[in-house]
Amino acid sequence: MTPPPTGFSTEEFQSRVARAQRAMAAKGLDALLLTTEPEVRYFSGFLTRFWESPTRPWFLVVPAAGKPLAVIPTIGADLMAKTWLEDIRTWSAPCPEDDGVTLLAETLREVAGAKGRVGLPMGHETHLRMPMADFARLRAALVPVEILDAADIVQNLHRVKSEPEIAKIAHSCAIAGRAFDAMADMAKIGTPLRDVFRDFQIALLRGGADWVPYLAGGAGPGGYGDVISLPSDRPLQAGDVLMLDTGAIHDGYFCDFDRNYAIGHADDDARRAYRTLYAATEAGLTAARPGATCADLYQAMQAVIATYGAADVDAGAGRLGHGLGMRLTEWPSLIPSDHTILEPGMVLTLEPSLEMAPGCIMVHEENIVVREAGPELLSRRAPPDLPVLD
Amino acid sequence: MTPPPTGFSTEEFQSRVARAQRAMAAKGLDALLLTTEPEVRYFSGFLTRFWESPTRPWFLVVPAAGKPLAVIPTIGADLMAKTWLEDIRTWSAPCPEDDGVTLLAETLREVAGAKGRVGLPMGHETHLRMPMADFARLRAALVPVEILDAADIVQNLHRVKSEPEIAKIAHSCAIAGRAFDAMADMAKIGTPLRDVFRDFQIALLRGGADWVPYLAGGAGPGGYGDVISLPSDRPLQAGDVLMLDTGAIHDGYFCDFDRNYAIGHADDDARRAYRTLYAATEAGLTAARPGATCADLYQAMQAVIATYGAADVDAGAGRLGHGLGMRLTEWPSLIPSDHTILEPGMVLTLEPSLEMAPGCIMVHEENIVVREAGPELLSRRAPPDLPVLD
Repeated sequence: MTPPPTGFSTEEFQSRVARAQRAMAAKGLDALLLTTEPEVRYFSGFLTRFWESPTRPWFLVVPAAGKPLAVIPTIGADLMAKTWLEDIRTWSAPCPEDDGVTLLAETLREVAGAKGRVGLPMGHETHLRMPMADFARLRAALVPVEILDAADIVQNLHRVKSEPEIAKIAHSCAIAGRAFDAMADMAKIGTPLRDVFRDFQIALLRGGADWVPYLAGGAGPGGYGDVISLPSDRPLQAGDVLMLDTGAIHDGYFCDFDRNYAIGHADDDARRAYRTLYAATEAGLTAARPGATCADLYQAMQAVIATYGAADVDAGAGRLGHGLGMRLTEWPSLIPSDHTILEPGMVLTLEPSLEMAPGCIMVHEENIVVREAGPELLSRRAPPDLPVLD
Repeated sequence: MTPPPTGFSTEEFQSRVARAQRAMAAKGLDALLLTTEPEVRYFSGFLTRFWESPTRPWFLVVPAAGKPLAVIPTIGADLMAKTWLEDIRTWSAPCPEDDGVTLLAETLREVAGAKGRVGLPMGHETHLRMPMADFARLRAALVPVEILDAADIVQNLHRVKSEPEIAKIAHSCAIAGRAFDAMADMAKIGTPLRDVFRDFQIALLRGGADWVPYLAGGAGPGGYGDVISLPSDRPLQAGDVLMLDTGAIHDGYFCDFDRNYAIGHADDDARRAYRTLYAATEAGLTAARPGATCADLYQAMQAVIATYGAADVDAGAGRLGHGLGMRLTEWPSLIPSDHTILEPGMVLTLEPSLEMAPGCIMVHEENIVVREAGPELLSRRAPPDLPVLD
């Protein structure tokens, strides 16, 4: 299992910036201001786990033409200098009196002009990673420069992945697939769920994950109550349904899929729920062709889920799948109101769920990339029947 | 190494809320609005890794009296119901048309009154974890309710830790200490740095870390260039100085310290830098008494660092330590302009650094809790001389 080449070519970054600049021109934007980890990394290649520290803001400015400029704390200067960027401006942070605001305002005025228009992602699924009070200061310092929503630009760019990006996601999926293959060694009757989580994370690291930002799951008689929990110390018991859902990282790209297992034996309800969700995923795979919408995928899967006859159809994740890439979850969403049209290169999760009984749900999940000819599975397909671990 | 009890007592949450409500009363606030993981968890106990998904906003509202209210996506209802909170309001997210804004506005109006004052952390080291466009809609929906900065309330509460919090941080430190103890087995001449990172994360998990949100470090002849990098595939060589810096999590609380090692042998510059930083930390430990300020700690350590005679005194992290707890890094900062007075219960890192040569730095780090009688080390003290791994 050879990993794909590390990082990206300069041409890939140039292409990302060129596409952003075309979209900026169409909206009349003179600069794009970015503050979050995936936004900054997408245009720079700046990959570090230091974003875990919430203390310091980081800024990337995409001009109307030319390379992006980094406006960052000194602690990141050495690492940013290894990227393809050239104009790297730093201040010694943290500096509560002026944490980069003056330097950023100067840079934006220089790039966008004294009466320019600056785009900033403000829409759905975005946030501003800097203090609100500092943003108010920035805004005041920039008058009459306008700051406008540019969420659509960033989301359109990230929505379709390049082949090198897809290769990284595929590799993360392969790593997680191998770790799931070894579940029989980890999840035995009497093993506390906490130990299963520990051993699964170790298997992911051994298999090539750089780190494991996300792992959730549950286990209980016949099913589990939610899909976002940390493990308890409860030992696995015969008749439990166990689910683990992971987002492991390889070279900055996530996988995001789960697997379900029966411990010792499975009851009929669990087997039937599993087969229903397997069939719902099949329906999603059939529907996941260029030109279909996210709503189409939702309806195709929901039609199968409805055959189970669950009482509460909204007990799961609030959607039946989502985008995937530099984030564990990205736009679009597989919901009835999302009419995003599928295009080749979009990476999605198919994530049907149903409620077997109050407080007892099951969720399946696979990762796919949309191709001209239809979907390509990035996660190896789960077995069609609920696997039983003895 | 027995871990402390999981979670917190209801009394602890009641005490946190009561202190927040006293501070709110003093500022004339009728409600506090919180949106980030540590802010929500501090008052609710809601612990999940699902915040890794940036899609959905989550809200907690602290009223002037009584328990906090959760306004959250349906996917979190089951887990939130296991906390001490009672009033949990949910919407099916993601819902791009109205992602909780109407529900949150109704809740805030009900709690704060039609002409109330709502506090929101807006100051240094905070951010708002919801889309800016949704915040603008919320603000418009709430008029004439005022939204005011309440960063000081949250920061004052988090700054001093309770004994159960300190016990969790101490346990994380003990886990990381044990993993560092095994470094000789992991870091050998010829071992790629990437493998050292992998094995160190595995050692942390085996030792009881729930997960490993942060690991950075470097290795190079005589020193390393920065402290926030991911590992390369370069094999360790004799004469390298290796540093790993980790933030492992136990029951939601971080450690944050590093260790330095010479591979095979150490040159005189590296030994001298190490001894200087060891002495700087000692000076920090001597100064870290209630009543001293963060600036005092900075000056005490900086005076020792200056004896090394480095060319660039600002080549490191931009500060000589910081707060630690539910976040990898918290306020206050050990910088000349931070005059926060040390109090018993404050958990801090002492993190002196110096530049040995251009692009070649060294950083030490220990974790302490301030006690009446002086500092108590939470990380076991590093050895006084640069350890050599053969």
